[in-house]
Amino acid sequence: MLILITYDVSTLSSAGQGRLRRVSKICQNYGQRVQNSVFECIVDAAQFAELKIKLNSVIDPTEDSLRFYQLGNNYKNKVEHVGIKQSIDIEGPLIL
Amino acid sequence: MLILITYDVSTLSSAGQGRLRRVSKICQNYGQRVQNSVFECIVDAAQFAELKIKLNSVIDPTEDSLRFYQLGNNYKNKVEHVGIKQSIDIEGPLIL
Repeated sequence: MLILITYDVSTLSSAGQGRLRRVSKICQNYGQRVQNSVFECIVDAAQFAELKIKLNSVIDPTEDSLRFYQLGNNYKNKVEHVGIKQSIDIEGPLIL
Repeated sequence: MLILITYDVSTLSSAGQGRLRRVSKICQNYGQRVQNSVFECIVDAAQFAELKIKLNSVIDPTEDSLRFYQLGNNYKNKVEHVGIKQSIDIEGPLIL
């Protein structure tokens, strides 16, 4: 099934950037990043449970917001995209 | 049905902030903001078509990324939340 994960964290702090990087890394083992803080993961029920445990151990629940949406197995006609495909590479080197 | 709208725009520019503000205003006529760039809207098929037309007229497709996810009518057990509920108020006054 397709799971959509949306993650809200202030990336103005380096700790927040680090958490977003770790969330992204975990999600990319199961799927892909489609926007800066939006990840689409293809998982079964066991992997979904595992993914939630991993993400919960990374985020700061007093600062971050994490949402999971279950799109089911027939998700292809439930998703539409407009505009650019590439999100800003906030994992790239930070030039100050 | 529940439509999830995720919107990726660089809010570092004032033009980007303005577009996010306009996207938020349109979405809030149909639902609510749940994260900085994530909106949940309850619409029927006609309203969904109308909403897409409105949003497409606001965004810059060469800079922004807009995604629509259809969660259907039985969405209540398809959504899970972890962490803080309140997103950062990026619509508030900008103090420089």
